Amino acid sequence: MAQKGDLLSVRQDIRVVDATVRDGGLCNDFRFSDKFIKDLYAANVKAGVDYMEFGYKASKEIFKEEDFGKWKFCKDDDIRDIVGENNTDLKIAVMADVGRCDFRNDIIPKNESPIDLVRIATYIHTIPAAVEMIEDAAKKGYETTINIMAVTKAKTEDIKAALEIFGKTPAKAFYIVDSYGALYPEESRRLAEMYCEIADKYNKVVGIHAHNNQQLAFANTIEALAYGASYLDATVDGMGRGAGNCALELLLGFLKNPKYKVDPIVKIIEDHTKKLKAEGVKWGYDIPYMLTGQYNTHPRPAISFVKNDREDYSAFINELYDIINS
Amino acid sequence: MAQKGDLLSVRQDIRVVDATVRDGGLCNDFRFSDKFIKDLYAANVKAGVDYMEFGYKASKEIFKEEDFGKWKFCKDDDIRDIVGENNTDLKIAVMADVGRCDFRNDIIPKNESPIDLVRIATYIHTIPAAVEMIEDAAKKGYETTINIMAVTKAKTEDIKAALEIFGKTPAKAFYIVDSYGALYPEESRRLAEMYCEIADKYNKVVGIHAHNNQQLAFANTIEALAYGASYLDATVDGMGRGAGNCALELLLGFLKNPKYKVDPIVKIIEDHTKKLKAEGVKWGYDIPYMLTGQYNTHPRPAISFVKNDREDYSAFINELYDIINS
Repeated sequence: MAQKGDLLSVRQDIRVVDATVRDGGLCNDFRFSDKFIKDLYAANVKAGVDYMEFGYKASKEIFKEEDFGKWKFCKDDDIRDIVGENNTDLKIAVMADVGRCDFRNDIIPKNESPIDLVRIATYIHTIPAAVEMIEDAAKKGYETTINIMAVTKAKTEDIKAALEIFGKTPAKAFYIVDSYGALYPEESRRLAEMYCEIADKYNKVVGIHAHNNQQLAFANTIEALAYGASYLDATVDGMGRGAGNCALELLLGFLKNPKYKVDPIVKIIEDHTKKLKAEGVKWGYDIPYMLTGQYNTHPRPAISFVKNDREDYSAFINELYDIINS
Repeated sequence: MAQKGDLLSVRQDIRVVDATVRDGGLCNDFRFSDKFIKDLYAANVKAGVDYMEFGYKASKEIFKEEDFGKWKFCKDDDIRDIVGENNTDLKIAVMADVGRCDFRNDIIPKNESPIDLVRIATYIHTIPAAVEMIEDAAKKGYETTINIMAVTKAKTEDIKAALEIFGKTPAKAFYIVDSYGALYPEESRRLAEMYCEIADKYNKVVGIHAHNNQQLAFANTIEALAYGASYLDATVDGMGRGAGNCALELLLGFLKNPKYKVDPIVKIIEDHTKKLKAEGVKWGYDIPYMLTGQYNTHPRPAISFVKNDREDYSAFINELYDIINS
């Protein structure tokens, strides 16, 4: 394997994507204060972050608006209320899940929207639907990426076939998504090389979105980076579903481009995410998440364990055996 | 670089070293209940752990006995009270710091002691004193390892020169010790290869002891492992000074040898370490430790910040700048 770049210099292809509101929103049903979102936007601009993901473009047919905060739906006007004309170097992203987004109606032409990037999230078995969404968004003028979830459950030959299909779409980046936090660094490197090999052929780039079930989200991110990935997802304080994500403050402290600054992000932790935790919003490494990561399985039972304030880990081990073997 | 082993098979050279009492003892002045130590010993036996480090052999001239729990001194009789004749596959280790151990008096002949392994901890500038201690312990019948601390501050040529000296001693293993939690996985791999190259020449093996300042302790441990290290330090719940260590439950879940079991260690977390945390014993990843790790500096100011229940991270950033540049 050949490494790309080193620990001392700058790679100009790197793009840091702050996914705090989107993945972190899964911990509090997207009920963030406007102050939080405004402070985070300003901090991301100062910190040199390249993209800020504001949330999902979720279908209002499938999800009731009253059940969630506004960032579940990311209406263009709500984003505009935060960013105005967004006269900054920070680009605005949203995520659209295959099958859970009325993309034909809810994604308006780019020239009427503050959004720059639409990230299409798909499982490996819903590729044609994902292709349709990529093409729709690209035709409307957006940048697009394709995020293939639960990579540790997909077969290598299926991933390759999927990437060959996505190579022919307008998507600019292929994302490695470790939904279960089950990847080890050597696998992260191998996947980055495999994704890059196909991406290079189609003039695309590769991204990584990691979860912290085994305290490896940051390691897997920088290892994928060293072996070719350039779009790097992270969240402030690692805020994200279950064990959370690669912490943005770790990533920015690692990157050598002087445009990246840790301090504005540390201030957001001091002013906001610590308080969210104190108020009972739950995320971050814990034993049940470690176990679902080790078993390469969905964190659902661990999320429920943590939500119920349980601490009987040994009982959870037995329950998990039953779930996996049922 | 050549990888050793893979993600599916067993490497018979691996030795897991539980350092909970020794490194964790730095968080509570070694004041563990006998129940904790007995339960941990039994759990380590069940979990297939290879060595359990009971604490330090600290000089009673330098440290007052009344200021610490007994595992600061690890008297042979105190260990014997826990392990009896230790008729198990688990070996008993202690640490002896250069300059802080009356090794001639306090380390008795092996055939009168329950201890199997004496780990000599040294900085790169106290090598002759370390050599003297290794030779003394080996002559008394103990296994020995040499743990060169603060590896990220030492020059490569000095490390190589040190390893050449230690190669000629009876020490069985050379340890990479990332005291500041400043190593990145690619450096961990490179160091493992460099240590192994010299270790091989002298028929020694290589170990790693990592700290979790950047959430990389587990990653750095398994990356050093993949590139040749075989003595792997870890602690239950990551308990250890400052940001703590590689979590034993993560490491055992990763290793493929069926003799290693996660469940007994998870039970210790459930029964003991969670309670220690609730009682106010402090360790684990936090922003001040991340910052000292990123700056490759001693965690002392971060430990003091956390001890004083401060949460003004931004002020700490400024203080750290001053400390580093003073």
